[in-house]
Amino acid sequence: MKVVIVGGVAGGASAAARIRRLDEKAEIVVFERTNYVSYANCGLPYYIGEVITDKEELTLQTPESFWMRFRIHIKVRHEVEKINVEKKTVTVKNLETGEQFEESYDKLILSPGAKAVMPKGAEGKERVFQLRTVEDTYRIYDFVKEKQPKNVVIVGGGFVGIELAENLHELGIQVTIAQRPDHLLSPIDYDMASFVHAKMRKKGIPVLLKKSVEEVRQSEDKVQIQFQDGVLETDMAIMAIGVTPDSTLAKEAGLALGQKGSILVNDRMETSEKDIYAVGDAIEVTHYITGKKAVISLAGPANKQGRIVADNVCGGDSRFKGSQGSFVIKIFDLTVAATGINETMAKQAEIDYDKVYLSPMSHAGYYPGGTVMTLKVLFEKNTYKLLGAQIVGNEGVDKRIDVLATAMHAGLTGLQLKDLDLAYAPPYSSAKDPVNMAGFMIENIATGKVKQYFWDDRKELEEKENAIFLDTRTYGEVKRGMAEGYRHIPVDELRDRIEELEKGKPVYVMCQSGLRSYIACRILQQYGYECYNFAGGYRLYSSVTAEKEAAVKAMPCGLEIEV
Amino acid sequence: MKVVIVGGVAGGASAAARIRRLDEKAEIVVFERTNYVSYANCGLPYYIGEVITDKEELTLQTPESFWMRFRIHIKVRHEVEKINVEKKTVTVKNLETGEQFEESYDKLILSPGAKAVMPKGAEGKERVFQLRTVEDTYRIYDFVKEKQPKNVVIVGGGFVGIELAENLHELGIQVTIAQRPDHLLSPIDYDMASFVHAKMRKKGIPVLLKKSVEEVRQSEDKVQIQFQDGVLETDMAIMAIGVTPDSTLAKEAGLALGQKGSILVNDRMETSEKDIYAVGDAIEVTHYITGKKAVISLAGPANKQGRIVADNVCGGDSRFKGSQGSFVIKIFDLTVAATGINETMAKQAEIDYDKVYLSPMSHAGYYPGGTVMTLKVLFEKNTYKLLGAQIVGNEGVDKRIDVLATAMHAGLTGLQLKDLDLAYAPPYSSAKDPVNMAGFMIENIATGKVKQYFWDDRKELEEKENAIFLDTRTYGEVKRGMAEGYRHIPVDELRDRIEELEKGKPVYVMCQSGLRSYIACRILQQYGYECYNFAGGYRLYSSVTAEKEAAVKAMPCGLEIEV
Repeated sequence: MKVVIVGGVAGGASAAARIRRLDEKAEIVVFERTNYVSYANCGLPYYIGEVITDKEELTLQTPESFWMRFRIHIKVRHEVEKINVEKKTVTVKNLETGEQFEESYDKLILSPGAKAVMPKGAEGKERVFQLRTVEDTYRIYDFVKEKQPKNVVIVGGGFVGIELAENLHELGIQVTIAQRPDHLLSPIDYDMASFVHAKMRKKGIPVLLKKSVEEVRQSEDKVQIQFQDGVLETDMAIMAIGVTPDSTLAKEAGLALGQKGSILVNDRMETSEKDIYAVGDAIEVTHYITGKKAVISLAGPANKQGRIVADNVCGGDSRFKGSQGSFVIKIFDLTVAATGINETMAKQAEIDYDKVYLSPMSHAGYYPGGTVMTLKVLFEKNTYKLLGAQIVGNEGVDKRIDVLATAMHAGLTGLQLKDLDLAYAPPYSSAKDPVNMAGFMIENIATGKVKQYFWDDRKELEEKENAIFLDTRTYGEVKRGMAEGYRHIPVDELRDRIEELEKGKPVYVMCQSGLRSYIACRILQQYGYECYNFAGGYRLYSSVTAEKEAAVKAMPCGLEIEV
Repeated sequence: MKVVIVGGVAGGASAAARIRRLDEKAEIVVFERTNYVSYANCGLPYYIGEVITDKEELTLQTPESFWMRFRIHIKVRHEVEKINVEKKTVTVKNLETGEQFEESYDKLILSPGAKAVMPKGAEGKERVFQLRTVEDTYRIYDFVKEKQPKNVVIVGGGFVGIELAENLHELGIQVTIAQRPDHLLSPIDYDMASFVHAKMRKKGIPVLLKKSVEEVRQSEDKVQIQFQDGVLETDMAIMAIGVTPDSTLAKEAGLALGQKGSILVNDRMETSEKDIYAVGDAIEVTHYITGKKAVISLAGPANKQGRIVADNVCGGDSRFKGSQGSFVIKIFDLTVAATGINETMAKQAEIDYDKVYLSPMSHAGYYPGGTVMTLKVLFEKNTYKLLGAQIVGNEGVDKRIDVLATAMHAGLTGLQLKDLDLAYAPPYSSAKDPVNMAGFMIENIATGKVKQYFWDDRKELEEKENAIFLDTRTYGEVKRGMAEGYRHIPVDELRDRIEELEKGKPVYVMCQSGLRSYIACRILQQYGYECYNFAGGYRLYSSVTAEKEAAVKAMPCGLEIEV
């Protein structure tokens, strides 16, 4: 059997190694367009920021090492230009020599990845960059060393944009992020992103939202980025708007395509054409939570697909169970992570959902070093099926998202989170872990012990004439800031002062995190009040509110802008 | 409704607060023998070690704060001496005044906890300590400050013994641990404990195994601990042998008891007597994995039980789903964690199990700061049902044990671990997370791609005349140490040198972690050899072997011993 693989990173490289382990006699040829194979894709921004200092760390595997261990032929700087489906060959161009040749296959695996979306005028400019390959990385690294740019505009605030922002900021370059969406990191919701916006602002990185790039120009040693409402001028620009499946090859060969031009595959990674498989960022997958088709560019699923396709190419029957979009990202000292779907996606999928917010400590409060995280869990109304979770914090965020991802994968409901027997010691957790706490809260909703209201209900509620808005924090806390229109009674005084609250009016209660206001709600409810607990507390309220104000004021410091 | 709770820590305190949230009108009285309520039980060793420096951190809740927020009467220094089942009262003694009185109840919740096992002669000695309460903590703390002991013997190497060893060592006291079992931390297996033994040795803490205490004496300013085979003399001794359910009260009232004198309850936390409930370390629970009865002293389950009993006392129907014994412990810079059952427990439960060992990095190798962990996963043969996991490492150990605990709780099989969509970014994980890797390995066993052998098979195998033992590491690696009787062919030379291995003989392959030897096995198998992969690699082999040798040599430095 002869297997040809197009693309030698992530899925392609995984597939090649696994095929050899399964079949010592297969002939395996990998064509990789760039000069590097199986490189540390997700490490590239950290090489630019000199967090990873050794070039070889990025490119640990070489064509030679693959040959030594696996007897796999890796041809770098070789671009597959055409699939000749009938003949079962590919037409390949050696990018070094320009030579063209045909290579036959019994099985063909496409792992071409995705390509960066480039706005008009962005291609081919000396001071305009993208970051997909090792070559892109060195180009940025060398430019920064040689030209010492004072400032950079990163267009796009997704994973790559944010990681580059951090790394370039740490090198002392003034960074600005500009993007079309109304919040950074689109896989999380606006409210959770407000913590990310705050971190950027604190680091002196302006975040310009709702800016869509119309054109990129370069004049001498400046780049001009033309937005719909003005121009930003900068020493260098990086295009990190997003990626699109690199499916030209598949399309021209007549393979069936899915959404966004992705390659259509079944759960065995088979394309519409016999003996042609595809994996990684170029394909369409089934979303594990919604069951709907999606394009998800992440390294974890790509590597799993590589292993699955190897099994199937070698006569096995492995199935990809779908992707639930789990991710984690470091943003300075913040960790942000999510799994499953967010509110936007739930609405698109027309799922009737509810949600809880909580602000637990990463570990026992009495043991030094703990930090507060904000955890948001989405679940389906009535069934309580877990739909998604988002966490912003520092320590222990990655742990809780993986626990929630596992619970979701296993089909647990939100109610079952309370029963999880998680490992506790003061340096690591609390006797009631944040994930258990989320379960307790969901159960309290399910059993009618508490009703909630949300930051984006505020406006609607303010119009209710009869409502009482009540803040139950301490005197010290409300002195430092309080939401507009709220009265103040500390929870510990509530029983004695309950007469101050007019009977018959609904009470909307808030505290710092939502715990004391929950206790207040329990008291009020039993005294006959209709009451609602503010989800996320003043902590979330002030972050979302402050962010709205700050976003309007944000200016790209040190850059010229005409509006 | 009037609820009386015996014991104001963990389960008792949780129950009290939850009952108030459910029922504003209930009368709630808590009797606590010590002077402190709802204190940070698991933080006590860290106060002694001055990691927690503020006394108030340990005892954040007070009878006053409970009254303020919850209108709960907490009576500290009150011991419940008798339950008068017929009259529905308890007889209480005020330990300050000596006064006795009767208190009636509608519902009674027992949360008495467990008491330390004390050897003959250990009680009432000035220089002999135990650690269960805040008072015990201050006693040790003050003794260390005032008497400045040079050395301490800790009898017992469980959670408390080990945490105390670390904390007293960090204060500059020479620590020795002595215990009856053959390895520290009995919830993990001997092989995994070898890494803990190595850490202790590195820190200069002798670990004396298979030493059982016959008597403890004190003469002037020295404690003599009489073992079966000698005497240790020390400035102070701490008894941390273990705990036993504090069920005297229940027993005398005629309540049904379970194993080890624990209080028998059903999954609603109801004892054999109507309107009497029990929670926490004193009760017998169902082990979630084996379905058998067990006594498990951990804070997580105790707190969950407190919430459940509150629901049931207030007319609800909450059920305790069982405990799976998840724990994590910090041991200097090591983190050790486990969930489910270990090999000893699997054998006792007569479960036919298999296991995998792996040594993955905590996060992507190319991103700085990653560390290697050793992960052991037990699963049932044939069904592949997950039974237990143990991990020793540094960063990310707590995360993986919680993911595995969740998978186990949800009833996933070992095969399903490969499909988990966990969050990946270089500072946190690898594209193939350690837990996914465990799943890949279990699948390789299930599909017959590899057969394993283990460190404790060694002796049996050596007697096989025909076997070939093969080390496939690099030249550099084998120079630093190699198992006896092994031949050396690096994996990358194996195909070229395969003729050196006599056909027809089984080949037992080893590498550093088990990955390269797996690749070697795949090659050999396809060349027609019967072959076996050494689980855990030379890394585990050398740890277990070195430990066996070192254990024999271990001496309690700085202490007198007569044998």
